[in-house]
Amino acid sequence: MAAEHNGRRTGAGRRRVVIVGGGFGGLVAARTLGGADVEVTLVDRHSHHLFQPLLYQLATGGLSPSECATPIRAAVRRAGNVNVLMGTAVGLDAGRRELLVDRDQRLPYDSLILACGAETSFFGNDRWCDHCYGLKTLADSVALRNRIYSAFEEAERAEDPAERERWLTFVVVGGGPTGVELAGELSIIARYTMKGYYRRMQPGEAKVILLDAGARPVAAFSERLSAKVDGYLRDLGVSVHSGARVSSIDEHGVSFEVDGEQRRIDTPTVVWAAGVQAAGFAGSVSSATGVEGDRAGRLPVGEDLALAGHPEISVIGDASRLAGPDGRPLPGLATVAIQQARHVARGIRRGRPGAEGAFRYFDKGALAVVGRGRAICEIRGHELWGRPAFFTYLTVHMYYLTGVGTGHRLKVLVDWINTRLGNPQDQVIDGELDSIGAPPGARA
Amino acid sequence: MAAEHNGRRTGAGRRRVVIVGGGFGGLVAARTLGGADVEVTLVDRHSHHLFQPLLYQLATGGLSPSECATPIRAAVRRAGNVNVLMGTAVGLDAGRRELLVDRDQRLPYDSLILACGAETSFFGNDRWCDHCYGLKTLADSVALRNRIYSAFEEAERAEDPAERERWLTFVVVGGGPTGVELAGELSIIARYTMKGYYRRMQPGEAKVILLDAGARPVAAFSERLSAKVDGYLRDLGVSVHSGARVSSIDEHGVSFEVDGEQRRIDTPTVVWAAGVQAAGFAGSVSSATGVEGDRAGRLPVGEDLALAGHPEISVIGDASRLAGPDGRPLPGLATVAIQQARHVARGIRRGRPGAEGAFRYFDKGALAVVGRGRAICEIRGHELWGRPAFFTYLTVHMYYLTGVGTGHRLKVLVDWINTRLGNPQDQVIDGELDSIGAPPGARA
Repeated sequence: MAAEHNGRRTGAGRRRVVIVGGGFGGLVAARTLGGADVEVTLVDRHSHHLFQPLLYQLATGGLSPSECATPIRAAVRRAGNVNVLMGTAVGLDAGRRELLVDRDQRLPYDSLILACGAETSFFGNDRWCDHCYGLKTLADSVALRNRIYSAFEEAERAEDPAERERWLTFVVVGGGPTGVELAGELSIIARYTMKGYYRRMQPGEAKVILLDAGARPVAAFSERLSAKVDGYLRDLGVSVHSGARVSSIDEHGVSFEVDGEQRRIDTPTVVWAAGVQAAGFAGSVSSATGVEGDRAGRLPVGEDLALAGHPEISVIGDASRLAGPDGRPLPGLATVAIQQARHVARGIRRGRPGAEGAFRYFDKGALAVVGRGRAICEIRGHELWGRPAFFTYLTVHMYYLTGVGTGHRLKVLVDWINTRLGNPQDQVIDGELDSIGAPPGARA
Repeated sequence: MAAEHNGRRTGAGRRRVVIVGGGFGGLVAARTLGGADVEVTLVDRHSHHLFQPLLYQLATGGLSPSECATPIRAAVRRAGNVNVLMGTAVGLDAGRRELLVDRDQRLPYDSLILACGAETSFFGNDRWCDHCYGLKTLADSVALRNRIYSAFEEAERAEDPAERERWLTFVVVGGGPTGVELAGELSIIARYTMKGYYRRMQPGEAKVILLDAGARPVAAFSERLSAKVDGYLRDLGVSVHSGARVSSIDEHGVSFEVDGEQRRIDTPTVVWAAGVQAAGFAGSVSSATGVEGDRAGRLPVGEDLALAGHPEISVIGDASRLAGPDGRPLPGLATVAIQQARHVARGIRRGRPGAEGAFRYFDKGALAVVGRGRAICEIRGHELWGRPAFFTYLTVHMYYLTGVGTGHRLKVLVDWINTRLGNPQDQVIDGELDSIGAPPGARA
């Protein structure tokens, strides 16, 4: 069967599958291939799989890093044919079918599954990244949490009222689910969680401002659900600026245009949740194969999820571009990546990545939460909001955490309930104020 | 009553108490003063109180940072007369009775409680600190955890067997409870926790070596209990070198002398758990008051815990030196700091720090744990070991966690049980291998 796909074999005579990325797509692909007659190597530069939909909780102190992340090795421990390599994919030799990894390592493959995901995109304004916080990696989110809790400390210490106000101003750029979730949670911690913590200022004075370039927040949902989210945000005291186009972000704050008027907000804390693009490695694959990515760097694939002219290379998840039934590209959701991973892995189990034929996305709906019983949910045309949507959100996320993760269930559940009751658990500023950027003990 | 102690009053006419340090001593002092007719300011450069006895668990992945640390503000939330200032004490103006804090801030006091604790001491070889890991702060412990889990990744990737062995060698310097606990736990994670994680090497091949300058480990305990600990360590595969004097630590490993013979171990991971000294700020107090510290920098105090010639300055916990009933200085234990804090705070409530008279330490015993049912315990002449000692250890630590901490109980309990069952929870390497030392998102 192996010979059908490709004549090359390993010492053990098994086909070699290399997976780039340990996100939802890569991890599910590896697990689906567990026990199959193939030799799998999963490459990721992190040792952990990250539950990205919960990063906003990590950033605001509701969960700790180990609750949003699980060691990749633990997740594939029982799959004896799956190797994990903690390393960085740096290039591709498509002709020799070898993945190039840092430290001059070459990994030959018979099938390559590219699941390298997405990263923050500043739409060409990359220097903004020095002055704002992202929300895509564990380090991003911990840095943001340190900033948020430090900002309250700075506000308490500030003698000058203008200085205090500056520290108590938080700007979130981007009106998608991530931006909305973070803005809502920020307002909740300032208003409720930290009530009574300070003596000289009230954290409830904090201003949370959401800058959204679109006409309405969470524009991927219906107008009715958008309006619900808008109402939830305003209930929580978040100022929502729709149609706000950011023109610059610097160390002192953010400038933007709204209704043709230039405006400026002074703040040391700007969070960028406005856009993503395929991870940089997709660009290397593009160069190596000649298949050009779209504007967001996503690699176009055929219905069998293979790259044009390269049936041995499958691209899944956020790094791939495939039109859905409505003609629009499938969204960057974990469910898309997971379904695509299973599709490709089952094909490989049957002999070749494309063996399962055309991929069809089964729409499991979309969710967004603004905090404390405020959520929206859209499942195959049905809409929910308020508490019913909120409990759907909790159920779905617990399901995925336990399905893909490898434990932590009880702990996360306890924290989850605690956080929902308004008791975020992880408000610890890692290291010290003056050490942010370089933990004092972090040598070597 | 205020006038009895000192003529100076705040605007509100209340005496001002300044506490330096948010460890066990400082935090208990602040809480004991909660609701009293005094205005309290607690200064700490961290925002958190740290449960230091559990740092070895953080370093080995059994607990996460938020489980070993609790925000100081949360702990004193209900004490409306307690201010918390996140800042660094930089000096003392003993004549004007003002504590100098960074950013040119001056805090006038009527009573000063110095509870600044201890820091790692390299006995004069401070350049060693660039090449080894400490275990006194949150950042220390997270850096060590990153190193431990990265070392296993490096060993898995190493092509050269000597290189692999180097990465799988862990040296712990110091045979006190901290060194013993860490060495035991390191062996447990290598032998049990990570079993099945790797394909190219067996983490159980790891060598854990304990270098102890003394004749026997945990020398503060009886010979019988020392022998128990020695046996536990050997059971777990830890190599114990007693009478080993470290002569140098560099980036490639550690050199030491044992039985007159020079020896060398090649390893990138050396943990220093050999000694502590009073925190640097005790030195500033020494200069400002002319009261000289002992060899470990500890400030000698009278029976009322006051600094000689300064009844308004009390020194408690690891930064102080007071002889116990046996003539030897009281040990650096949380119970000592807590009892001293209560003593001083009750005095202040009665009008002056010394109002409670001579401090008498009530010996609550001492404990050390080597892991999984292996512990020793000495309480007022009674000795326990094995499971009875282990359950005593669990009970005592849970008691202190819930007594001094402000929650997390259920979560820590769940993790605790999980960890005891051999499932450490927090094996996440923060950031990436190449980002250790400077998390990519940590700007500003």
